[in-house]
Amino acid sequence: MSDEKKKIDNRRTADLAALSVIDANSSNGQIETSYERFVKMQPQCNFGEQGICCRICLQGPCRITKKASKGICGAHDYTIVARNLIRMMCGGCAAHADHARHMTHVGEMMVQGKAEDYTIMDKDKLYAVADRVGVEREGKNDEEVFEDLVKLAKEDLTRFEGAHEKPFTWLSKSIIEERVNKLEACNIMPRGVFGTIGENIAQTHVGMDADPVNLVFQGLKTSVADFGSEHIATDFSDIIFGTPKPVVSEANLGVLDKDYVNLAVHGHNPILSEMIVRAAREMRADAEKVGAKGIKVSGICCTGNEVLMRQGVPVLTNFTSQELPIMTGALDAMVVDIQCIMPGIRAVAECFHTKIITTSVNVKIPGAYHVDFVEDRADEKAREVINLAISAYKERNPDRINIPQIKHKVVAGFSVEAILNLFSAVNPDTPIKVLTDAIESGELRGVVLLCGCNNLKRIHDNNHLEMAKDLARNNVFMVATGCAAGAYAKAGMMTWEAVEEYAGDGLKAFLGRLNEANKLEEKLPLVFHMGSCVDNSRAYDLMTAMARQWGVDTPKVPYAASAPEAMSEKAVAIGSWCVTLGMPTHVGVYPYITGSDLVNGIALQIADDVYGGYFMWEEDPHKAVEKLLYALDDRTWKMKVHRQAMEKYETESISAGW
Amino acid sequence: MSDEKKKIDNRRTADLAALSVIDANSSNGQIETSYERFVKMQPQCNFGEQGICCRICLQGPCRITKKASKGICGAHDYTIVARNLIRMMCGGCAAHADHARHMTHVGEMMVQGKAEDYTIMDKDKLYAVADRVGVEREGKNDEEVFEDLVKLAKEDLTRFEGAHEKPFTWLSKSIIEERVNKLEACNIMPRGVFGTIGENIAQTHVGMDADPVNLVFQGLKTSVADFGSEHIATDFSDIIFGTPKPVVSEANLGVLDKDYVNLAVHGHNPILSEMIVRAAREMRADAEKVGAKGIKVSGICCTGNEVLMRQGVPVLTNFTSQELPIMTGALDAMVVDIQCIMPGIRAVAECFHTKIITTSVNVKIPGAYHVDFVEDRADEKAREVINLAISAYKERNPDRINIPQIKHKVVAGFSVEAILNLFSAVNPDTPIKVLTDAIESGELRGVVLLCGCNNLKRIHDNNHLEMAKDLARNNVFMVATGCAAGAYAKAGMMTWEAVEEYAGDGLKAFLGRLNEANKLEEKLPLVFHMGSCVDNSRAYDLMTAMARQWGVDTPKVPYAASAPEAMSEKAVAIGSWCVTLGMPTHVGVYPYITGSDLVNGIALQIADDVYGGYFMWEEDPHKAVEKLLYALDDRTWKMKVHRQAMEKYETESISAGW
Repeated sequence: MSDEKKKIDNRRTADLAALSVIDANSSNGQIETSYERFVKMQPQCNFGEQGICCRICLQGPCRITKKASKGICGAHDYTIVARNLIRMMCGGCAAHADHARHMTHVGEMMVQGKAEDYTIMDKDKLYAVADRVGVEREGKNDEEVFEDLVKLAKEDLTRFEGAHEKPFTWLSKSIIEERVNKLEACNIMPRGVFGTIGENIAQTHVGMDADPVNLVFQGLKTSVADFGSEHIATDFSDIIFGTPKPVVSEANLGVLDKDYVNLAVHGHNPILSEMIVRAAREMRADAEKVGAKGIKVSGICCTGNEVLMRQGVPVLTNFTSQELPIMTGALDAMVVDIQCIMPGIRAVAECFHTKIITTSVNVKIPGAYHVDFVEDRADEKAREVINLAISAYKERNPDRINIPQIKHKVVAGFSVEAILNLFSAVNPDTPIKVLTDAIESGELRGVVLLCGCNNLKRIHDNNHLEMAKDLARNNVFMVATGCAAGAYAKAGMMTWEAVEEYAGDGLKAFLGRLNEANKLEEKLPLVFHMGSCVDNSRAYDLMTAMARQWGVDTPKVPYAASAPEAMSEKAVAIGSWCVTLGMPTHVGVYPYITGSDLVNGIALQIADDVYGGYFMWEEDPHKAVEKLLYALDDRTWKMKVHRQAMEKYETESISAGW
Repeated sequence: MSDEKKKIDNRRTADLAALSVIDANSSNGQIETSYERFVKMQPQCNFGEQGICCRICLQGPCRITKKASKGICGAHDYTIVARNLIRMMCGGCAAHADHARHMTHVGEMMVQGKAEDYTIMDKDKLYAVADRVGVEREGKNDEEVFEDLVKLAKEDLTRFEGAHEKPFTWLSKSIIEERVNKLEACNIMPRGVFGTIGENIAQTHVGMDADPVNLVFQGLKTSVADFGSEHIATDFSDIIFGTPKPVVSEANLGVLDKDYVNLAVHGHNPILSEMIVRAAREMRADAEKVGAKGIKVSGICCTGNEVLMRQGVPVLTNFTSQELPIMTGALDAMVVDIQCIMPGIRAVAECFHTKIITTSVNVKIPGAYHVDFVEDRADEKAREVINLAISAYKERNPDRINIPQIKHKVVAGFSVEAILNLFSAVNPDTPIKVLTDAIESGELRGVVLLCGCNNLKRIHDNNHLEMAKDLARNNVFMVATGCAAGAYAKAGMMTWEAVEEYAGDGLKAFLGRLNEANKLEEKLPLVFHMGSCVDNSRAYDLMTAMARQWGVDTPKVPYAASAPEAMSEKAVAIGSWCVTLGMPTHVGVYPYITGSDLVNGIALQIADDVYGGYFMWEEDPHKAVEKLLYALDDRTWKMKVHRQAMEKYETESISAGW
């Protein structure tokens, strides 16, 4: 047991606003949040943590012990661990596939003229996506191009599984050819998304696959299907709501304003939240009628990231602390869509006037309000939600309002398009060369994607923050998504001030050059916010652009990923495709696989041999950064040696007259 | 803890042949089988058994205790239990969907002329299925009708999920209209199979649905998708390999013959095993070359049922005892396809000369032989497998051969078509009336489907056998599938001798009348073998036929199901559709849901209120039969009262001149 785990209390957060609410609660009363529940849950089951507990059939549960070294069916530890692991990948991929399905469904309704509140907002993105995935634009109007994209997405999501079928087009057209060939050669190029998930779930049924290598590698097929699903979701979001551009906002509980109707949007899907942001801007008068100055929308988790990136909506908080805004007494309603919504919010809201509003047919919470969000009446439904918030405002108890006055400026909105646009001020012909040159010259040591969730097995946000400081000092260009991005936003690390405080000379020079070339009024931040967790595809697109520039496969690019507080099955799926698509990938909590040295070995080493990406488990943020730096330097060094050898060869060839 | 569980040793079987091998092993040596592993695994984890252990995210595992009454995310026991439960339904449905996908894939290859070893063997079934599912036959040849069926199956398996899409055709056309309406009204009519599974898996991701009622009811959507998948699989199997007709064979370990090359087929899919049976008949000379008298193929689990039903291949054994044939020293090879294959067989085979041969890309066992069974070279691959068995024969150690001389006659092959054909000898116009009349007259008390797996939480096969004896005495017409059918086959209960020994007067008279009318040389058995577990759709078709005859919805039909030893996720899915489609359903082991009174209440009572079917958990076989009889009598009585009331109403209407 780590030292960190021995002395566990409920003050497990590096977020000062969160800490202030936790402490006020501890002195006042008894409201239970995730922090207290984590304490009560200790110690956690060691069998489950190691992945050696099997509940796949009703003859179980089986637990691997010295006495019982195999399951009742004879399954070894490695079989049990591998089955549990790929089921988690399936869970994550299903979540993203369902998200992509929803976006595609809305697209289809738009094509049919049934979702009038949604339009094609970003035509450039429409064209770019069509060109990327191979949808012909010649002789078609925008609506027809969009219709073809919807059709392709639908086909990709549902295609019959089997090697004889067409590969997953959206995926195979969005990664470089070398990776496509690798996936095909390893027999893990998915055909359809849902078919792949079903196939993998079937493969883990009792009495199916017992071979851990086959299990894990087939699981990777689901993980790359996850990447493709994420890409579909992000592309449609950009087309319908606009591709993010730099935007300035603020973050943390201090964004709540007691004079306003405060409505938090929470979950992962912009379909609902974009409508709420629009409607809220028009409903100020309704709020004024009940004595408020207006309506203040703020965001939690990735719905928060979605509306921050496109609309500059302030960030309220991230996953672990999602119950705390209610405890300020000033949050009138929290409307949720899908994923990462703690059932606990409802019990906390019961102690306050806050209304919890669910909106998806597949996400309900007993006791919560439910507004069935149908896309053909999107604006109407958004107003219904806002009216619930306004009516709750009247029920506030002023004596219980206690908003921590902590918030920070946030510079966000860095889609790949936005980043390349910044680079183009320095190098208009080949924008990506700004980044690759900086790495070649040694100004930057590489790129790290900081991503993933919150997980109370670590101190909330702490490792996110510590790692970014270390990486900054070491001149690593950082992009962030999901709850990692939330952590940086809340702590003021998405600002130029953070650059000045933490960045090494190289990174400072690099960002300074961009500021200057772009004549930026609002200077660039230390960590670049790329969006929600479904937008990790953006981060990989950046890696792909670098690989293309260098003319190498992705496993040669000094680009790594880190999920210091991985928590959800989506994180398991994402981490797995990061590895499969060529990234060294740090995870700051142990996944449920340490019960099998063999499966653990696949993750840590064999994956590298086959795919060029690999996992690193490391709880300590400083050691984790050392490992990431080693991974980056190793790649940069190899590239340099290779380049020098090639140059020498060429010179000698010429001088020898070959 | 039940008395049964307190005194646990490895002699947990009612199968005398199995017991003989276990005892010989105990006195001889140390080979570990499922029986010993079950003993070593005691006690099993109570959290898992109650369903209140959550490993859905990496912040866990969370276990509900007095101290920690909710998961770290705030999930109540009911949310955790419901999520775990519907994930099991998804596991079962995925297994059957993958089976259906495989059958459809072979069909597609046949259409493309790429699977020459397979043909349309049963044209009557082809026509009947086409007519049932609404495929037009006018002006098409058989191949074209078949092609359309393949297309429809593919569409049904992959259709995009969403209420706006077309319902699952194969399913909706195979059940009565009242049930279709019920499923639509309750919003659980699936569209596509894989899409439904994905949707349900997504719904159980961390932070998704917390509402147990919504979770369980949406899970039922997956369970009916499971029924549809099973139906697709069975229909294609019948078309390609023939619809089963009565057949006489034998069962239990005594079917092994030391003078022959003994090859066991094990798993669930006839695609491979049918080819092996055919090839084995032609390869006698090859076996003779190594000194054997020929090749003896026998079957384990549902692959065994498939080839018994269509080819009269003897049954070797069922799930729990699958390792024991190897220990007779006379099994030369065991070739496996998919599902319910214990990884343990490989370790046992290591102590003998037996070759374990895997054949599916998604089912591998470290150390086993792997023959990649590609359908375009089916016969060639089947011969490759048989040659492995022949070569193993030469490596036998004669001193270790010890075959228990226990086997029984089996009369099997009772598809719905075969049963109706028997009935038509009594009532050529309306065959099903033979059964419904017998129930109306009180000769029979109803029908019970005996199905499901083996589960060592009960004494292997014991409850299967005890329940059938009790039901027989009480004049219940019994059909059986899967490992339940295996238990009856091995114990001699699929014979007329068993009728004479166990049947009550009514059942005896009913079966006797059928024997006489059909002038049967081989008289009918006590329990009617309907096939493998995927063929449970056959059993439901019989219920549907009865409902149609009576002009009522299925929940009014005195027809119940029982899985005395349910084990696999498939059993969870099957049990759930049995309930959703209107059956009282007994399960002899507790599923992982007792940790939530609410979810348990949905299964035991609320399901009945909504769907007319419900679960009964009962470990004691005699009490279970009492509950089943009550359920049947209740329905018969209600139907009688209703009929009398209607007759009185009609009489009075006429006399009153209405």
